[in-house]
Amino acid sequence: MMDYLGTQIIAELFKCKPKRLNSLATVKKAMLEAAKASNSTVVRSVFHKFSPQGISGVVVVAESHLAIHTWPEYGYAAVDVFTCGKHTKPEEGLKVLAKFLGARRIKFKKIKRGILSEVEDDGRKLLLNPNK
Amino acid sequence: MMDYLGTQIIAELFKCKPKRLNSLATVKKAMLEAAKASNSTVVRSVFHKFSPQGISGVVVVAESHLAIHTWPEYGYAAVDVFTCGKHTKPEEGLKVLAKFLGARRIKFKKIKRGILSEVEDDGRKLLLNPNK
Repeated sequence: MMDYLGTQIIAELFKCKPKRLNSLATVKKAMLEAAKASNSTVVRSVFHKFSPQGISGVVVVAESHLAIHTWPEYGYAAVDVFTCGKHTKPEEGLKVLAKFLGARRIKFKKIKRGILSEVEDDGRKLLLNPNK
Repeated sequence: MMDYLGTQIIAELFKCKPKRLNSLATVKKAMLEAAKASNSTVVRSVFHKFSPQGISGVVVVAESHLAIHTWPEYGYAAVDVFTCGKHTKPEEGLKVLAKFLGARRIKFKKIKRGILSEVEDDGRKLLLNPNK
């Protein structure tokens, strides 16, 4: 058994092309191509365009999910690429998204999800028996 | 303007009740109640049950999204609660989810999303002009 179940990339895409961030067709295409590039299998997807601007979209994949929220007014998109399994390449998904949206500055971190060891310590807060 | 756009809680729910983690009705109810508790407005939601077990679900809210992936075999669920706006309470959403799923051990971290200051440094890797 792996010592963790998946990897989540939390990325901030800055200096994107605002028009692309506000195009439902572009964001949808970018997300589906990103899922493909990350070697994930698409199960379901939902996209929503807000008024006056901004798009939210999620692609549920067999290996977890990809999510995006765009702020065309700031040239910014918040992106998550969360995949499980050794066959997946979440970084490749992020690269494809960045390219589609014309991002010129990216900040990201990778987080291991589902760490099963009880002794592991990565600085996360711990709640024991939160319901008691 | 706020110096960041939203807060994302990345949570690991351990020692949950396996039956609840494998019930589409329970997970869906838990997620929609969590969205409500976080003071978010539901826009769209998708849930998918995998064979032989496990559920993935995402609730797109006007304030971003909530996501869950469950592994009944490990009593584990990976949860994200990402909300924007001062009116939202992502921690309350997490608490509701933990209660619905019977989680007895939670690890979580909070990440600020969309930090707009160029000088901010939170240890995230930075790529400049990634497309060049």
